[in-house]
Amino acid sequence: MSLATDKNPVTQAKGPFVVGGIMIDFPDLSDIVDSTASKIVMLVVDGLGGVPHRGTGLSELETASLPNLDRLAQMSAGGRTIPVLPGVTPGSGPGHLALFGYDPLKYFIGRGVLEALGIDALLRDGDIAARGNFCSIDSNGILTDRRAGRIPSSESFPIVETVLSTINVPNVELVVLPVQDHRFVLIARGSELSANVTETDPQRTGATPLLVIPTEPGAQKTAEVINTFVAEARELLSDQPKANMLLLRGFSKLPSFPSFAQTYKLNPAAIAAYPMYRGLAQVVGMEVIGTGNTFGDEIRVLEDHYGDHDFFYIHYKHADTAGEDGDFEAKVKALEDLDTYIPRILDLKPDVFVVAGDHATPAIMAAHGWQPVPLLIHSNLTIGDGIDAFSERACLGGSLGTIQAQHLMLLALAHAGKLTKYGP
Amino acid sequence: MSLATDKNPVTQAKGPFVVGGIMIDFPDLSDIVDSTASKIVMLVVDGLGGVPHRGTGLSELETASLPNLDRLAQMSAGGRTIPVLPGVTPGSGPGHLALFGYDPLKYFIGRGVLEALGIDALLRDGDIAARGNFCSIDSNGILTDRRAGRIPSSESFPIVETVLSTINVPNVELVVLPVQDHRFVLIARGSELSANVTETDPQRTGATPLLVIPTEPGAQKTAEVINTFVAEARELLSDQPKANMLLLRGFSKLPSFPSFAQTYKLNPAAIAAYPMYRGLAQVVGMEVIGTGNTFGDEIRVLEDHYGDHDFFYIHYKHADTAGEDGDFEAKVKALEDLDTYIPRILDLKPDVFVVAGDHATPAIMAAHGWQPVPLLIHSNLTIGDGIDAFSERACLGGSLGTIQAQHLMLLALAHAGKLTKYGP
Repeated sequence: MSLATDKNPVTQAKGPFVVGGIMIDFPDLSDIVDSTASKIVMLVVDGLGGVPHRGTGLSELETASLPNLDRLAQMSAGGRTIPVLPGVTPGSGPGHLALFGYDPLKYFIGRGVLEALGIDALLRDGDIAARGNFCSIDSNGILTDRRAGRIPSSESFPIVETVLSTINVPNVELVVLPVQDHRFVLIARGSELSANVTETDPQRTGATPLLVIPTEPGAQKTAEVINTFVAEARELLSDQPKANMLLLRGFSKLPSFPSFAQTYKLNPAAIAAYPMYRGLAQVVGMEVIGTGNTFGDEIRVLEDHYGDHDFFYIHYKHADTAGEDGDFEAKVKALEDLDTYIPRILDLKPDVFVVAGDHATPAIMAAHGWQPVPLLIHSNLTIGDGIDAFSERACLGGSLGTIQAQHLMLLALAHAGKLTKYGP
Repeated sequence: MSLATDKNPVTQAKGPFVVGGIMIDFPDLSDIVDSTASKIVMLVVDGLGGVPHRGTGLSELETASLPNLDRLAQMSAGGRTIPVLPGVTPGSGPGHLALFGYDPLKYFIGRGVLEALGIDALLRDGDIAARGNFCSIDSNGILTDRRAGRIPSSESFPIVETVLSTINVPNVELVVLPVQDHRFVLIARGSELSANVTETDPQRTGATPLLVIPTEPGAQKTAEVINTFVAEARELLSDQPKANMLLLRGFSKLPSFPSFAQTYKLNPAAIAAYPMYRGLAQVVGMEVIGTGNTFGDEIRVLEDHYGDHDFFYIHYKHADTAGEDGDFEAKVKALEDLDTYIPRILDLKPDVFVVAGDHATPAIMAAHGWQPVPLLIHSNLTIGDGIDAFSERACLGGSLGTIQAQHLMLLALAHAGKLTKYGP
């Protein structure tokens, strides 16, 4: 992964941005947004929400010892966010876009682009990115394993570098970058490429990998390029024991979204140790500052650059990782670790401090969940809702109620005194 | 009513269905819906929600002794549904469509069609149905009573059969079916009929019944047919003491809605003792199984067919009937009766058991109400929200929050493991 990072600094998503409404239900925010000196810090705890443990009846947040977050809850307004709709589990893309105020059903980042963002890959406007999987086929070309036995990075990275990276197709520049295990990213760069092509993954074993078909007339060239690449790869991979074929999904271009900075009249900064979250922030036009490896690094970056911006998105990953692993105790520990950093954020005295999550990742589900996510907003207008702790149940009783995540930015701006009256 | 039922088996609404989004706010559910073996039972308690009794301060649910529903509440996720919008009281059509996941402001079933569904009348694609009222006019043709003194069925049914059913109009087949008291249904069958015509009811006494006027060019023939029928009827009814004229409202065709089964990748079954609710289920493409007369019959049908489907809509009517009658005690009794059947549903061990209502029918209003309706979802992910009873107030504190009824299906699917992640 470092290989990709070193070769490909993050330079994507400098615009151009579309001017337009980012919420379906509030088309023109510029009428009511005001630029002021106040500062907002939005801490996004990935996979924040949980579900009670079957044994104790307590969720991860309720089990954890969180003296600082509990004290913060006691002097904040509490509530819950619904990332997309009740029952709908978001991926990281929709989960973050909603917190940034973008209607997640209107704005969409494709799987290929997100995978590329996740390894800090260079994406230029017009590039097509796809997520690739190595897979296994039998002598008749029938898929026997869609993930090639989940071969480890130590086996797959050399195949990407020595095999896939050598493939040339006329009239287009192809870049293949390893991701992890059986996964890689294919980027096609050239004129007149289109993401409107079908995927090659039949989504089941027992079938043959599919040809790419254009779904619009302008995608003919792209389909030919991809099919040529796949045919060549198949030949070159034929003597591999497991990874003797590949599948491509989620063809997509870097989208042109309205600018977060322009929409909210903010000078926003993003701090995230994991590349995908830096990429998501850049897609909406935030400036990425610092790329440390730990949350402690992130906090230091926040402290060092606190004078330079009026909005900070800071991302905490480990709650999600532990939840995805189905490790209840590890998620409890991740939340307790996070708690120790809260005083350092409060010491900066942000005018508004938001603690939110992009989605729940209940450890008992070992996956993202659809559940409403706990939320706190602390400002000089909050003195506490009678909530005594930071948890799913406590926040259910908070004054913010249960809101759509895409409306959170409005509340953050309002608490910061950055929203004027709507209508006379 | 049995007359209409016997002559006209339910055969409507076998499609064709429109492929498309059934919620305005989630255009393509097929991306995230997964077909699995899990089973969902949705119990719709008609008119479920209520309002506290002035004397005791307790609602119908709070007054009733509901040991089984209370126990269920203690191990479920609770919440409330808003059928349409805050303050908006739904009819049975919008109330049910919302629970089935159809945006009730986008999908509409006309008054004529709903009245026909309520008597199990045969409706074919293209038929025009209207709700008819007998009424009284004076010698100048001025309306003196829009409901003909609410003449009883014993008087009105013979008039329908011996007078209205004898009327012939060229180029169209007319079917007139009695409903109850002063009400009947007119069905016009033939080519090139349109529901886009005005109503004949001026909505007040002191005016004359109106001529039907086409509101689109293609409705000329229909307007002529209806006006001819009304003129003929007026002559034939002229010697009736009360029912000497008729009014027609709600001209409508059986709508083409997206298929519930296709949208949710379910094999859905509907169980309802009352025809209208079977008809509503058929309009969205559910298979009606069994047409017993009591809720006990319905439960037996559920038990007998439990292996054949993965989604069951089962309808309980009496809470609404008692509420509409303004009979608080009868509604309490209806809820207590329902409670005794809950163990038989739980014995089937559905993966997801939803208890919902299409709307409130508070006894003190003696009518449908707009109030949020209590909701329970029980699955292997619920262990209770701290709710100790099934009531409006208890459910207000539940983790599901107060949601739009049209999103309930998403939650039911999510709890059943039938929804995959939205977006990468």
